Amino acid sequence: MVLEFGLDTFGDITADAIGPRSGAQVIRDTLAEAVLADQVGLDYIGLGEHHRPDFAISAMEPLLGAILASTERIHAGTSVTVLSSDDPIRVFQRLATLDALAPGRAELTIGRGSFTESFPLFGFDLNDYETLFTEKAQLLQSLVAQEKISFQGSHRPALKGVTVYPRPERPLQVWRGVGGSPDSVLEAAAMDMPLVMAIIGGNPARFTPMADLYRHTRARMGAQMLPLSVHSPGHVAATDDEAKERYFPAYATMHDLIGRSRGWPRFTKAAFEAEIAHGSLYVGSPETVAKKIATTVKALGLDRFTLKYSAGPQNPAHLRDAIALYGSKVAPMVRDMLA
Amino acid sequence: MVLEFGLDTFGDITADAIGPRSGAQVIRDTLAEAVLADQVGLDYIGLGEHHRPDFAISAMEPLLGAILASTERIHAGTSVTVLSSDDPIRVFQRLATLDALAPGRAELTIGRGSFTESFPLFGFDLNDYETLFTEKAQLLQSLVAQEKISFQGSHRPALKGVTVYPRPERPLQVWRGVGGSPDSVLEAAAMDMPLVMAIIGGNPARFTPMADLYRHTRARMGAQMLPLSVHSPGHVAATDDEAKERYFPAYATMHDLIGRSRGWPRFTKAAFEAEIAHGSLYVGSPETVAKKIATTVKALGLDRFTLKYSAGPQNPAHLRDAIALYGSKVAPMVRDMLA
Repeated sequence: MVLEFGLDTFGDITADAIGPRSGAQVIRDTLAEAVLADQVGLDYIGLGEHHRPDFAISAMEPLLGAILASTERIHAGTSVTVLSSDDPIRVFQRLATLDALAPGRAELTIGRGSFTESFPLFGFDLNDYETLFTEKAQLLQSLVAQEKISFQGSHRPALKGVTVYPRPERPLQVWRGVGGSPDSVLEAAAMDMPLVMAIIGGNPARFTPMADLYRHTRARMGAQMLPLSVHSPGHVAATDDEAKERYFPAYATMHDLIGRSRGWPRFTKAAFEAEIAHGSLYVGSPETVAKKIATTVKALGLDRFTLKYSAGPQNPAHLRDAIALYGSKVAPMVRDMLA
Repeated sequence: MVLEFGLDTFGDITADAIGPRSGAQVIRDTLAEAVLADQVGLDYIGLGEHHRPDFAISAMEPLLGAILASTERIHAGTSVTVLSSDDPIRVFQRLATLDALAPGRAELTIGRGSFTESFPLFGFDLNDYETLFTEKAQLLQSLVAQEKISFQGSHRPALKGVTVYPRPERPLQVWRGVGGSPDSVLEAAAMDMPLVMAIIGGNPARFTPMADLYRHTRARMGAQMLPLSVHSPGHVAATDDEAKERYFPAYATMHDLIGRSRGWPRFTKAAFEAEIAHGSLYVGSPETVAKKIATTVKALGLDRFTLKYSAGPQNPAHLRDAIALYGSKVAPMVRDMLA
């Protein structure tokens, strides 16, 4: 697999000079951002679900259908589908439909979800956090691997020799998104799912043992190696200073809003500078960001890097600038650095 | 409301000279059919869900996202969403996302579903057929009518003062699809939902009491009148004979396949001719079909007529011919006849 460059977004509510944009406008903006990403040669755009006032994307697939119909080359998928509070059969049907629309370009990434809003909203109990995900991941994996499936679990009546339609024309692309639990890495390897590691803070090299665990497990299984990807937040602008000025206020707003319910300390400029210098914020000029991505790709042995490009009430014009620079400058620079 | 002309399809598996097309190909064909429908000036295209080998559409919204992104004017929606086996919050989120993508052009029709495959597939019990639908329809109606909702039912934990995102920019368009039960008609009127009557056999005039019940109920409530629509199967070709020759074998195949599990007698040519002459098959030349639609529209006082244009293993080229004739010839003829 040639090194790929992706984008991820949860559809953060952006703001322009007039004020916050509507969720509906953010959805339309996201479609335009995907079209731009396709035009500047990026390989992937992923949409993640949230169920809160500060995010516009709760249903990814209608927007993915529009994105795939409006683009030529880019892959598009979920990043991530919170499988614990969804139905694996519906998830499979939606992915198979997207893959039919854009053969080979639709992807799915499943995860446990780091926000808990979706559990009560869809009638699930957070006490079932573990078994909900494990059982649903097993059912989804069966659906992807076999035509006729049977399934027995504790959260739904059994299924016996069922086939789910529409039938895919090729193997569907399902990734496993993990936060940092070795158990999840082992599960992904066992389920033949390529791995996305979400690294949203701290030195990315801390994840080297995770990447190695995944590779060694696959090797021990005698199984083919599967792609490894990292998702991290960041922002690209013409200069380091401009990138920091454009990104800091929105990122800090988002960080502190989420942090209030999680007991995080307030985000400071010093913490921001430290995350850029030694942590997992890819913020700066194209050259700064390219160097940082190249270091991470090399340290972890990655096949794909996805930049989580939206964070809090940023100006949508800045998001477009960042996407254009990431595709046209950063990606070729990283490829040169690693050549 | 000016009289509108729509199409409905469940994505029947079509067949060409080579044999049956793949489900994925049918999904791509359906997108092309929607684009054609938009070009020939039709007002609506609706997609219905099935979970069987003879139909390709089980997930409507990814395809609707692609349709809305690929068309200019046509409304697109579900016909119908089997709400009993879905989650009203997910359904609302998908519709709000589609409406954001194509402001004012996304629609939803909810119904109980006349096929039962979806119940075991998604873990529901057919014994809950009544309460599942009633509770879910109430929850959906609250989501559409109010921003902050509370809900208590027997099929999920309660919700208290919840808001679901993304927020729509305008009232979402939700129709109620009914087969022929007066209770459903009364429910639709009480819930402020416009009515779609699925008339798939017999003389359409039999449904006049249903249409009147709906109108009288709305009048008694002192509520504004809402649109009334009819969905019926049919096929248009250059001549009556050509339409019958092209349609009969596929329609009979579909009828007998479904009829096997429902104890229907085999479909005969005589039954076919009788349904065309006095029943609910709109099959023939543009003039024949236009006359029949005009009669139904007048008898029931309709605002919209939707032709269920796919039925069994038809040739996809014939479907395209029918759509083109329906939009360019039938619709203007009906409008002239009723002027």
